[in-house]
Amino acid sequence: MADRYATLASHADFRRIARSRIPPLIFDYFEGGAGDEMTIHENETAFAAVRLPQRVMVDMSAVETAGDLLGEACSMPLALAPIGFAGLMCRRGETQAARAAEAAGVPFCLSANAICSVEEVAQAARRPFWFQLYMMRDRDVVVDLLRRAWDGGCRTLVFTVDLAVPGIRRRDIRNDLFGGTTPAKLLSYACHPRWLVDVGLRGGPHTFGNLAPYVAKARHLAGFGGWLMRQFDAGVTWKDIAWLRNQWKGRLVIKGILDRRDATMALDAGADALVVSNHGGRQLDGVAPTAVALPAIARAVGGRAPLLVDGGVRSGQDVLKALLLGADGVLIGRAWAYAAAAGGEAAIAALLARFQVELRTAMTLAGFADIDTIRDRRIPPASDVMPCDKSGPNI
Amino acid sequence: MADRYATLASHADFRRIARSRIPPLIFDYFEGGAGDEMTIHENETAFAAVRLPQRVMVDMSAVETAGDLLGEACSMPLALAPIGFAGLMCRRGETQAARAAEAAGVPFCLSANAICSVEEVAQAARRPFWFQLYMMRDRDVVVDLLRRAWDGGCRTLVFTVDLAVPGIRRRDIRNDLFGGTTPAKLLSYACHPRWLVDVGLRGGPHTFGNLAPYVAKARHLAGFGGWLMRQFDAGVTWKDIAWLRNQWKGRLVIKGILDRRDATMALDAGADALVVSNHGGRQLDGVAPTAVALPAIARAVGGRAPLLVDGGVRSGQDVLKALLLGADGVLIGRAWAYAAAAGGEAAIAALLARFQVELRTAMTLAGFADIDTIRDRRIPPASDVMPCDKSGPNI
Amino acid sequence: MADRYATLASHADFRRIARSRIPPLIFDYFEGGAGDEMTIHENETAFAAVRLPQRVMVDMSAVETAGDLLGEACSMPLALAPIGFAGLMCRRGETQAARAAEAAGVPFCLSANAICSVEEVAQAARRPFWFQLYMMRDRDVVVDLLRRAWDGGCRTLVFTVDLAVPGIRRRDIRNDLFGGTTPAKLLSYACHPRWLVDVGLRGGPHTFGNLAPYVAKARHLAGFGGWLMRQFDAGVTWKDIAWLRNQWKGRLVIKGILDRRDATMALDAGADALVVSNHGGRQLDGVAPTAVALPAIARAVGGRAPLLVDGGVRSGQDVLKALLLGADGVLIGRAWAYAAAAGGEAAIAALLARFQVELRTAMTLAGFADIDTIRDRRIPPASDVMPCDKSGPNI
Amino acid sequence: MADRYATLASHADFRRIARSRIPPLIFDYFEGGAGDEMTIHENETAFAAVRLPQRVMVDMSAVETAGDLLGEACSMPLALAPIGFAGLMCRRGETQAARAAEAAGVPFCLSANAICSVEEVAQAARRPFWFQLYMMRDRDVVVDLLRRAWDGGCRTLVFTVDLAVPGIRRRDIRNDLFGGTTPAKLLSYACHPRWLVDVGLRGGPHTFGNLAPYVAKARHLAGFGGWLMRQFDAGVTWKDIAWLRNQWKGRLVIKGILDRRDATMALDAGADALVVSNHGGRQLDGVAPTAVALPAIARAVGGRAPLLVDGGVRSGQDVLKALLLGADGVLIGRAWAYAAAAGGEAAIAALLARFQVELRTAMTLAGFADIDTIRDRRIPPASDVMPCDKSGPNI
Ligand SMILES: Cc1cc2nc3c(=O)[nH]c(=O)nc-3n(C[C@H](O)[C@H](O)[C@H](O)COP(=O)(O)O)c2cc1C
Ligand SMILES: Cc1cc2nc3c(=O)[nH]c(=O)nc-3n(C[C@H](O)[C@H](O)[C@H](O)COP(=O)(O)O)c2cc1C
Ligand SMILES: Cc1cc2nc3c(=O)[nH]c(=O)nc-3n(C[C@H](O)[C@H](O)[C@H](O)COP(=O)(O)O)c2cc1C
Ligand SMILES: Cc1cc2nc3c(=O)[nH]c(=O)nc-3n(C[C@H](O)[C@H](O)[C@H](O)COP(=O)(O)O)c2cc1C
Repeated sequence: MADRYATLASHADFRRIARSRIPPLIFDYFEGGAGDEMTIHENETAFAAVRLPQRVMVDMSAVETAGDLLGEACSMPLALAPIGFAGLMCRRGETQAARAAEAAGVPFCLSANAICSVEEVAQAARRPFWFQLYMMRDRDVVVDLLRRAWDGGCRTLVFTVDLAVPGIRRRDIRNDLFGGTTPAKLLSYACHPRWLVDVGLRGGPHTFGNLAPYVAKARHLAGFGGWLMRQFDAGVTWKDIAWLRNQWKGRLVIKGILDRRDATMALDAGADALVVSNHGGRQLDGVAPTAVALPAIARAVGGRAPLLVDGGVRSGQDVLKALLLGADGVLIGRAWAYAAAAGGEAAIAALLARFQVELRTAMTLAGFADIDTIRDRRIPPASDVMPCDKSGPNI
Repeated sequence: MADRYATLASHADFRRIARSRIPPLIFDYFEGGAGDEMTIHENETAFAAVRLPQRVMVDMSAVETAGDLLGEACSMPLALAPIGFAGLMCRRGETQAARAAEAAGVPFCLSANAICSVEEVAQAARRPFWFQLYMMRDRDVVVDLLRRAWDGGCRTLVFTVDLAVPGIRRRDIRNDLFGGTTPAKLLSYACHPRWLVDVGLRGGPHTFGNLAPYVAKARHLAGFGGWLMRQFDAGVTWKDIAWLRNQWKGRLVIKGILDRRDATMALDAGADALVVSNHGGRQLDGVAPTAVALPAIARAVGGRAPLLVDGGVRSGQDVLKALLLGADGVLIGRAWAYAAAAGGEAAIAALLARFQVELRTAMTLAGFADIDTIRDRRIPPASDVMPCDKSGPNI
Repeated sequence: MADRYATLASHADFRRIARSRIPPLIFDYFEGGAGDEMTIHENETAFAAVRLPQRVMVDMSAVETAGDLLGEACSMPLALAPIGFAGLMCRRGETQAARAAEAAGVPFCLSANAICSVEEVAQAARRPFWFQLYMMRDRDVVVDLLRRAWDGGCRTLVFTVDLAVPGIRRRDIRNDLFGGTTPAKLLSYACHPRWLVDVGLRGGPHTFGNLAPYVAKARHLAGFGGWLMRQFDAGVTWKDIAWLRNQWKGRLVIKGILDRRDATMALDAGADALVVSNHGGRQLDGVAPTAVALPAIARAVGGRAPLLVDGGVRSGQDVLKALLLGADGVLIGRAWAYAAAAGGEAAIAALLARFQVELRTAMTLAGFADIDTIRDRRIPPASDVMPCDKSGPNI
Repeated sequence: MADRYATLASHADFRRIARSRIPPLIFDYFEGGAGDEMTIHENETAFAAVRLPQRVMVDMSAVETAGDLLGEACSMPLALAPIGFAGLMCRRGETQAARAAEAAGVPFCLSANAICSVEEVAQAARRPFWFQLYMMRDRDVVVDLLRRAWDGGCRTLVFTVDLAVPGIRRRDIRNDLFGGTTPAKLLSYACHPRWLVDVGLRGGPHTFGNLAPYVAKARHLAGFGGWLMRQFDAGVTWKDIAWLRNQWKGRLVIKGILDRRDATMALDAGADALVVSNHGGRQLDGVAPTAVALPAIARAVGGRAPLLVDGGVRSGQDVLKALLLGADGVLIGRAWAYAAAAGGEAAIAALLARFQVELRTAMTLAGFADIDTIRDRRIPPASDVMPCDKSGPNI
């Protein structure tokens, strides 16, 4: 673990540093979510509410966190979730994250809305990374992006389906995130000189690296706004996924499943794997936390395809809980975003090391010598509805 | 959405501004409720506790929030609840609200205890609005008010039944709201000059516009106190509703139902529609929150009449939740009162636009293309008692 | 309602004033309880968790809170609980309370450990009051006290059984309540000059009026300590109650029942009525709140004897809830203690008026025209264990 | 009870003093635990959630807290849990604790990782104390320690099994507890002069008294770090316990059982008694609180061996609750650590006196005249899963 970050004991410590480093406007964009942010909160508390077993006197002399994640050998069943604008957290953020993930032996997933292009990341990384996309109105753009991802070495496509329209994020509205530059905003940047130099002055170009070729005359992020909005396609259905399936010969992962019926439909449409996700509480506030939704989906999938989960995973213990609830692996979003903002590649490396030692320790104390043992031992909860899961009705 | 209010992202933002603008005494009157204000709080938390579905890859290219509300075409299934004294929030508050509602395409309901008379509102509005009344001891006054409402174009009468006696509102007692003018009160007004000019100086006359004709020599609000108190009639029964039914040839909506037996009796007495309501927690503290009471009432009504609900509806997501719990539409009370106090008509317009975009987004992400689909999909909860609804017994 | 207290809207308002008036040491004695004070807290929250019905269009033109309480006509089904040392809250506190209760038409119960003797209270009151006692090791004292109570006009004896040993009250330990006078204590008294004059200078003699005759040489409260401690008799059993039954020809009320088996045994031993009580959380922290214990006890008693309840009753709504849970009336303890400390007789009168108007309003809005109707309508909960009453096991 | 501590009414009061006396770094080591410290918190709240009975008119003239604990006569069913580094709380802390326990008539358990050696404690104590050990890689060390413990008079061996690897304690990471001396640390020591003199200057030698013979050249605590880490043996299984069973002819207590299957296996491996423990929340955060795990384990053990429990026991009431949940006795950890830091032997004595009077009072008010009666009356909960124990699933 990088020495400078040795005393950061959890994501909360990275968060604290991140908060002091980057302008509130940007921090709010990363941290916040839809509506009253209940779902963000519940994603975390749902993992907290899961009980781990404590088992003793089991031979734990060789605990192994490594294993297969979607056909790739990984040091632990975890990948970095796609985060748009990650290049605003630290200089060329996606590239730094890809390098940290590679060193730690876990997959990095590049967002379609990244600052760094797939080509730039491919240059920096030796290990193949994952590429995330969502359906755009202009299907030629989709096809071209798939080609570029493939050329960049990506063999796993994470296709996000919970983004028919952008969620309503109140922090961004209050901060007027997508409005023009104001003196107040400039002042806020000036109050964070470290970030200003690292990202503002040395971190350019500030465009969406993947999308820039398709947007005429867009030299700053603001210029992309209208184009992006027009590309959202609320009319996409499973048929389009079937079309996509034909376009992409690599592994197709559908991200944004929260309903077991959708899980089945995704598999029917040709998905190779699923991510149980509510987009980290950034889309529709008030939906089920992922740790609550996961078991029923795992039962519906019944082992036909690997199942990942994200939302609220904040420690190695949470990774173990996710596996016990039925997942084969997790994505972490905000956790690595905080680390990136706190210290770039080195901080992300420290965070990943932290997760791994936590996972190994948790496995040891719970009596699981390796990932397969966890999978074998998990007990499917008896019913779809978690006991006393919430006071209100599930509709 | 009016530009000035573009960064107000939720009712809480309007509330904050309202709070700074109007004297605490008045603010407390609007915000507060009966007893320990548990029911106010639970009205909100009961909606918060409802889980929304997240569905993906459903064709949402044409999401439509518009539909029929009690036989009227509306832009969304929502109306402005009757609020007494709304003219104290901003100059001629009821008139401003009526105009904002009309522009937004939703019904406005004028309170019997409004500052503006039904004639004044009728003058300002082109679209027919709703009129709210409760039984007064002097039935001639009731008959005359019904006539005036009809002449003013009202075709929907919202008859409030949960007001046999006024609730005991501790904030008002502590503030001595209905006591005489004191130096402390005057000072408090003086500390809110904007309100003082807008409402105090330019917002007169400060009488109950609807009731003034019947109250001899009442030139100020204080003069109405005794008269109003004497008009409360705790002896009203369903027989009086039958009598009322004969007096009013328009649509009769009974507001203040929280028990399924009362729902049935209201329909038997000739009601065309019901509002599930605990008067926004202003009457009896400790009753069921409306979101908890609604499903059982919806089952009892069984589609025989439209069902509205109010109490704690604070966002477009809450509107969707109300429909999923069995309602055909909602009323919003405090939400528009806050907006009115924050900025009159323009602010109410901004609030309503916010609700609509929230509702549309929530419908899109939950997979409901229109209001009828929501109604079709709602699953009646299995039992009358919500799971784990509350720790104590329901009596 | 006394004008000076007209803006005090709940017990919390009286409490605030009390807190500013009397020395913290004394305030803590009145307010605090055993252990972590969980039971005090839960006594309140258990009432808060009970749901009241909202019923409409029921003829409420003549709501009546008055009725019979243990054979006495009362203006509402409520009595002032016995409070030891009440004379420390205001000058001759028990006498003031007795007068306020009499004026309000409710019974006052004098504590054995009162400052004012039964003779002094008898002098001040015209209406017979209740007398509270617990078993003392010296049975001659018991017999003599019974005789004096009878001579003072008391016909109802409230015999407290949950006091085998005094509870461990941490505030009192921290404050060294029963230790000697220290400069810190004197300073604290001096900082409350109003109380110092009212109680300290003019409120004497500061002895236990009822017990003084039996304690040689006790001129100050401190002198009673050892005597009182020696009188606690942990060996008392139902046989002693049978003996007591023979000594007392008036009404015998057993106070301190929390277990239905004890309820039955109390009736078998000759009790005329019971008080479900955990001594206001002052004895054993962690027992059931009374509102939770009440229904099962009511079922066990099955109407064979009147059932009172105390602990956490803070408003007229709580009185209605108690009746709906199976009680025939309530005692209030701290509520009147706060009022007494806030303003003596007048404040207690104001508090009682507040309770009555709250009870009447709650009855009106819940559709109960009189006390008997409440009793008829209450639905015994289906099972002994309240639904989701608490997360832990009941042993 | 020592006079100086007479106004300390609960462990929280001792804690407050401890906190002001010892450097934060050390305090955090004692107080903190693994992960988010949820389990520490839940250990406490699980006891708080248990309901005690209130029974009256049972002959309680002779309540007796004394009884047998693992074959030893004790003044109450409680022992001091093994605490590593206790000599950092006050001068020769383990010796002071042993003396206080002896005087109070309860067992003291010496940690393998104590500052004072078994020989030093044996010198100070007359009553045999317990010795705690965990498996070390070097079995010769284990054998030698067993011999020394036996020679020191120990007849009860508490063998800790929940320590396959050390838990991840975030406070210690943040404080860089095991890192080198820094100016900040020195300053923090200097700010606590009382501790500096008592422990730092006069409290030496600062080595692990029990382990020093085996560690070459270790003169300061820091020198032990590497050696200790190498001794952790994650490969230990029940077979090693069987081996241990042969090495130790005294009583063998297995500490760290949280799963009923492990309980059975421990008995099969020859354990004479068990301690239900999650190591006070210091090992794996998120496991069941001990009060929740206890009943099922008690059922599995079925009286075949005595069962102790620790974790979150903070008062005499908690001791009674533990017995009612199925334990035969408790260990207290942090409670005595706080007292030791607050005032050494005298403070521990005061704390133990407090526990005993609390236990006696609780027994009296709950109607249990002695420990055996408690055991007879406890009702095994109907099912393994506590009602509504937690919102999440138990895996
Ligand atoms: C700032 C931010 C940007 C995100 N951008 C994307 C994105 O571009 N594409 C995507 O599929 N998911 C995106 N997500 C969602 C994440 O991939 C992931 O689902 C979520 O962060 C998981 O929840 P967690 O943050 O609680 O770990 C984003 C999340 C955050 C916080
Ligand atoms: C300040 C205020 C005044 C009100 N006046 C009336 C009224 O005159 N007549 C009526 O039927 N309801 C009245 N109500 C109740 C509302 O119509 C509605 O039922 C309630 O506000 C809904 O709860 P909400 O505020 O949480 O949305 C009033 C509510 C408030 C907050
Ligand atoms: C300061 C104080 C003194 C009390 N003294 C007595 C007493 O002398 N005898 C008795 O039977 N109960 C006594 N009680 C208990 C009350 O009678 C009553 O049971 C309790 O206060 C009810 O709870 P509440 O305070 O929440 O209303 C006392 C309570 C308080 C708060
Ligand atoms: C500072 C500290 C050091 C401890 N050291 C040991 C130890 O050396 N051996 C052991 O078996 N348990 C150890 N424990 C665990 C305790 O024996 C006991 O299980 C735990 O403290 C009980 O929880 P409580 O602190 O909530 O009472 C330690 C606990 C603490 C707080």
